Amino acid sequence: MKTTMQAITKPERAPGFLIREVPVPECGPDDVLVKVLAASVCGTDVHIYTWDDWASARLKPPLTIGHEFAGIIEKVGSNVRRVKPGDFVSAESHIICGRCLQCRTGQFHTCQNVKILGVDTNGCFAEYVAVPENNIWVNDPHLPPYLASAQEPLGNAVFATLVEPVTAASVAIFGCGPTGLCAAAVAKAAGAALVVAIDVNPYRLDLAARMGAYVTLNPLEDDVVGELKRRTDGNGVDVVIEMSGNPQAINQGLEAIRLGGRFTAFGLPSKPVTIDVAEKIIFKGTRFLGVSGRRMFETWYQVAALLRTERLNLAPLVTHKFPMSEVDEAMQVMQSGQSGKVVLMVEPAH
Amino acid sequence: MKTTMQAITKPERAPGFLIREVPVPECGPDDVLVKVLAASVCGTDVHIYTWDDWASARLKPPLTIGHEFAGIIEKVGSNVRRVKPGDFVSAESHIICGRCLQCRTGQFHTCQNVKILGVDTNGCFAEYVAVPENNIWVNDPHLPPYLASAQEPLGNAVFATLVEPVTAASVAIFGCGPTGLCAAAVAKAAGAALVVAIDVNPYRLDLAARMGAYVTLNPLEDDVVGELKRRTDGNGVDVVIEMSGNPQAINQGLEAIRLGGRFTAFGLPSKPVTIDVAEKIIFKGTRFLGVSGRRMFETWYQVAALLRTERLNLAPLVTHKFPMSEVDEAMQVMQSGQSGKVVLMVEPAH
Amino acid sequence: MKTTMQAITKPERAPGFLIREVPVPECGPDDVLVKVLAASVCGTDVHIYTWDDWASARLKPPLTIGHEFAGIIEKVGSNVRRVKPGDFVSAESHIICGRCLQCRTGQFHTCQNVKILGVDTNGCFAEYVAVPENNIWVNDPHLPPYLASAQEPLGNAVFATLVEPVTAASVAIFGCGPTGLCAAAVAKAAGAALVVAIDVNPYRLDLAARMGAYVTLNPLEDDVVGELKRRTDGNGVDVVIEMSGNPQAINQGLEAIRLGGRFTAFGLPSKPVTIDVAEKIIFKGTRFLGVSGRRMFETWYQVAALLRTERLNLAPLVTHKFPMSEVDEAMQVMQSGQSGKVVLMVEPAH
Amino acid sequence: MKTTMQAITKPERAPGFLIREVPVPECGPDDVLVKVLAASVCGTDVHIYTWDDWASARLKPPLTIGHEFAGIIEKVGSNVRRVKPGDFVSAESHIICGRCLQCRTGQFHTCQNVKILGVDTNGCFAEYVAVPENNIWVNDPHLPPYLASAQEPLGNAVFATLVEPVTAASVAIFGCGPTGLCAAAVAKAAGAALVVAIDVNPYRLDLAARMGAYVTLNPLEDDVVGELKRRTDGNGVDVVIEMSGNPQAINQGLEAIRLGGRFTAFGLPSKPVTIDVAEKIIFKGTRFLGVSGRRMFETWYQVAALLRTERLNLAPLVTHKFPMSEVDEAMQVMQSGQSGKVVLMVEPAH
Repeated sequence: MKTTMQAITKPERAPGFLIREVPVPECGPDDVLVKVLAASVCGTDVHIYTWDDWASARLKPPLTIGHEFAGIIEKVGSNVRRVKPGDFVSAESHIICGRCLQCRTGQFHTCQNVKILGVDTNGCFAEYVAVPENNIWVNDPHLPPYLASAQEPLGNAVFATLVEPVTAASVAIFGCGPTGLCAAAVAKAAGAALVVAIDVNPYRLDLAARMGAYVTLNPLEDDVVGELKRRTDGNGVDVVIEMSGNPQAINQGLEAIRLGGRFTAFGLPSKPVTIDVAEKIIFKGTRFLGVSGRRMFETWYQVAALLRTERLNLAPLVTHKFPMSEVDEAMQVMQSGQSGKVVLMVEPAH
Repeated sequence: MKTTMQAITKPERAPGFLIREVPVPECGPDDVLVKVLAASVCGTDVHIYTWDDWASARLKPPLTIGHEFAGIIEKVGSNVRRVKPGDFVSAESHIICGRCLQCRTGQFHTCQNVKILGVDTNGCFAEYVAVPENNIWVNDPHLPPYLASAQEPLGNAVFATLVEPVTAASVAIFGCGPTGLCAAAVAKAAGAALVVAIDVNPYRLDLAARMGAYVTLNPLEDDVVGELKRRTDGNGVDVVIEMSGNPQAINQGLEAIRLGGRFTAFGLPSKPVTIDVAEKIIFKGTRFLGVSGRRMFETWYQVAALLRTERLNLAPLVTHKFPMSEVDEAMQVMQSGQSGKVVLMVEPAH
Repeated sequence: MKTTMQAITKPERAPGFLIREVPVPECGPDDVLVKVLAASVCGTDVHIYTWDDWASARLKPPLTIGHEFAGIIEKVGSNVRRVKPGDFVSAESHIICGRCLQCRTGQFHTCQNVKILGVDTNGCFAEYVAVPENNIWVNDPHLPPYLASAQEPLGNAVFATLVEPVTAASVAIFGCGPTGLCAAAVAKAAGAALVVAIDVNPYRLDLAARMGAYVTLNPLEDDVVGELKRRTDGNGVDVVIEMSGNPQAINQGLEAIRLGGRFTAFGLPSKPVTIDVAEKIIFKGTRFLGVSGRRMFETWYQVAALLRTERLNLAPLVTHKFPMSEVDEAMQVMQSGQSGKVVLMVEPAH
Repeated sequence: MKTTMQAITKPERAPGFLIREVPVPECGPDDVLVKVLAASVCGTDVHIYTWDDWASARLKPPLTIGHEFAGIIEKVGSNVRRVKPGDFVSAESHIICGRCLQCRTGQFHTCQNVKILGVDTNGCFAEYVAVPENNIWVNDPHLPPYLASAQEPLGNAVFATLVEPVTAASVAIFGCGPTGLCAAAVAKAAGAALVVAIDVNPYRLDLAARMGAYVTLNPLEDDVVGELKRRTDGNGVDVVIEMSGNPQAINQGLEAIRLGGRFTAFGLPSKPVTIDVAEKIIFKGTRFLGVSGRRMFETWYQVAALLRTERLNLAPLVTHKFPMSEVDEAMQVMQSGQSGKVVLMVEPAH
């Protein structure tokens, strides 16, 4: 087996990525080495590419980037029992400590000492990636690699949407990036009575309609709160899924939610948000639920179950595929807003 | 307005029904008088028809029968505020006391002093029926009366199925009478990953497949437990919805459920059931949940929401319609097993 | 029976109260007329007394004030069945519509059309008060009237504290007004592993310690967040009960809560609050739950159960009693901060 | 360090135990070797001692017995990170596979491939015991070893009692063996409004009263169902905790539970039980919840929290202590019914 490989890296504390030859990662006794077939781009990767404040505070270059992927197990460490070479797999990107209060009580997604693949450790935008066996998810062999890679953001949407049941409920989704798009598909698959997708970007609203939204609203043109109330007999929506991180969206969602409704906060605001806690949360009896990551591994089982039964229309989700060598083009498409999910495809090894 | 009407009655303590002219019911200050358009037949009505032990112990003839219906409000009592003459309505058949612990805490479906329309009070197999305003549900005007009448059993299925979420879960439904058939439609609409319907009656299995079951099993031919395990990677199903009341079905369901699964007991066994509590409930960590009736009125809102979005395929449900004058034929069809839901249609008043 | 009575009223749109002779309220067919024995003062009454922006926007004088009380039923309307003259009672102050989505689904405490006794209708700071039968709670005859009157704020504390279980959990209560004091007693009675009460007022911290807080912290002197983390092995507290409405307290609570913790927002901030939603709610997986009122009537049953078993030490709660004629003195004590609950006692009728 | 040790063993497929010299267990790379200070006797150990059908079907002698203990870590395997020699510890006795659906979703207590210490692997009735690091719980150093050893059955009681909240609820506990006794203490500590303990054994009822039961009932003398209804205004109890496994107790509990109540099934019936599912579970809307083991490790955190705050009165629980050499006497006391928890104390090493 070869000892070096091509990888997309952050070589130093500055904007941009660099493709270069690096050592194939070591596979420790509890690890699995995976040959990558497809890797998808997350908004986090864009933050790292542009080297914003968050990235600058968190990353320690040089580092191989990327945390969403699908591939084939090349080899396994000596303690590995659950999976084997040749398995078609993806992975949960949150690498947990296993020792904190949250890990010891099965709340792994809130581990106090979590490390993230491609952020805190070398990632998957490369020919090979090493991850702990615990993180490995064995995929349905019929799933195409570019969709298998997208299970992570789909998992975010499944967790955020299904943290409380949505069957027969009215659901408003603010923000139609890839996670919001997936939330529309999940809400529809789960039998929501109404699925409204909201975004200022017509390209993304079109994707949302194709993936499951029954109604799309554009705050630049529509009276979002008024429309949501009108379509719910004046009561307001049962559920808000906030995927944008936009302070105005958060406040519109709190305005449009019914008394006693559930608000999932998932999209990350870039700074603190001013909220009318008295009128919109306390008097309304709102359950304002912060959600991040995916439940390990309930969410993955749910994702797999929904994919297997073909209840999710994910066809429109992946709008662009690039070879890994064209990562700069991929980053530009991501920043353009004229994209859904963007996937990097690894050419067959030679 | 006329003062007498045709009604299907139980005239005395013996098998059979009698159609006869009775007074139009009085409409008290808190009541609503409804002109009936359609009324559907429940298994309970068959028990009353055949005058079995349960019926003999519970009923006090003479009584007008029937508790599922749709119609138009004819007049309202002096205290009535929420509805008005001309509204197209159905009704919850459980008439609650409003004073017991359960009523005072919003658990109306378990009222200690519940009376049932057409069982404890005069029912709806008649030209007119009087019910308390509290029980009235205003229907979507686009709903055909024969389906609006079936909202009660559909509500049973919604409550039994969604008492805990089923999205992305594997669901086995034992018993394909009308409530089991509806449960299959509800589980599918709610995004269950697997919906298996089980019955010994091929006619009903066929209906189940048309309404939403992905797989049907016949215990006379199939290894039910083995098949359920095989289709769930050996784990067993996440959820069992027991709609038959058959002791063997209950025990097969408990055998086929996964560790930590949820069992909804809805079908009424005619006598006590012998259950391996240690192995099947305690060691498995089973949640064995008794469900009856419908939550008032969450379940009705859920039913309406699912109907409005056309997520339920109810077309196959109602297999027979009869004029009220042919109630004996309706009873025979009900007893034949070769039927789904049977509806009595009231001819236009003249 | 007499036809006029003494009442504490807001006579016009200006600060202050006026005691005057007004007609004894009429008792409608669904109402109960109660002879008041004790009535307790709520912060809301102080807002009405000082005639602040909220009061000015909400109230329509002239009006009799007051919504917390205990008394003896004098007479009942013609439709009343559950209670009878001579019963020793208190009442839920939220008068609900019974027709909105929330009322129809048993979520009465979030009724869309709620009216509040003594705010929207004539209240209980008077010799007699009329309330709908539905609102009446029959008290344990052994309960002293001044404590029975305090069941409303105690109910707030019970709902806010027990909205999710606290047994064996670490609980921090921000704000030691009467509701915060009651929350300390409730958390202790419910077997919380740690009960920390936080306030800037030493008088109230002393009351909190006597009512159940294991630890008291004063933000003017103590490092509140640091202490809460230190006492929870660095994890942060499982539960925050926010009773102050102070923006700093809300943010300290969110800082001190553990990953995956529960935050009850009950105290009403006077204006919107700026919250670090990303770091403190989303990444932490916080459940931020708005709570107001009391569940009707689960909370009342819980209050009665806790009172009956003497698990709550309420002795320190009521720090002052005044005759109704000294309502101005009562208002001054309320505003001084040197008080717990203040109760107005009605002299025996003569 | 010595290489052999004294151990209480099941040497062959026959009744009785044999104390003999066996090798000190090996400590694998993921294991911890503990020097035992105290080990407590469980009913399971009595089944093994008497060699009943269950024991005969499950055990593969020769084997060292025992699964409840407290001791000091002597040495740790090379992969161990969370604990260290000298730590005062106990252990969860369920050794999980880590790979099944239940383990992968944090439901460890229902692992499909669980092994039990002292049943499937060599146990702790010995000078040393080796357990996986994952199973180790670090004790509060102030806890006496004989109580620390009893955390396992206390954990059963905590899980069974608190699987849904009991604060302000009425609770009936059937069966006053050690786990039922602990349940009484837990229910009281959690603020139950009523704690009734039921057993035919006056010795155990006396212990129950001392540990927290407000009322004790003896089915041989008292009308259990009638008394439970009488003390709950005729409603029946909110919660039944079934700790006896006795079919009559199960049916009495189902009779005495209120409509919509929660029944925890924990005590293991020796054979299938005949239950009136229609009347007692379905019509009553009962949640019949099977519980076994302890949640890993939420339950352990709850146990530790309750112990630390001294809310549990465990003083009466341990009625007998024996040196390990007197294991036969311990077994006789266990079988006599005149005991609470029985603990074997290991003499200081020499």
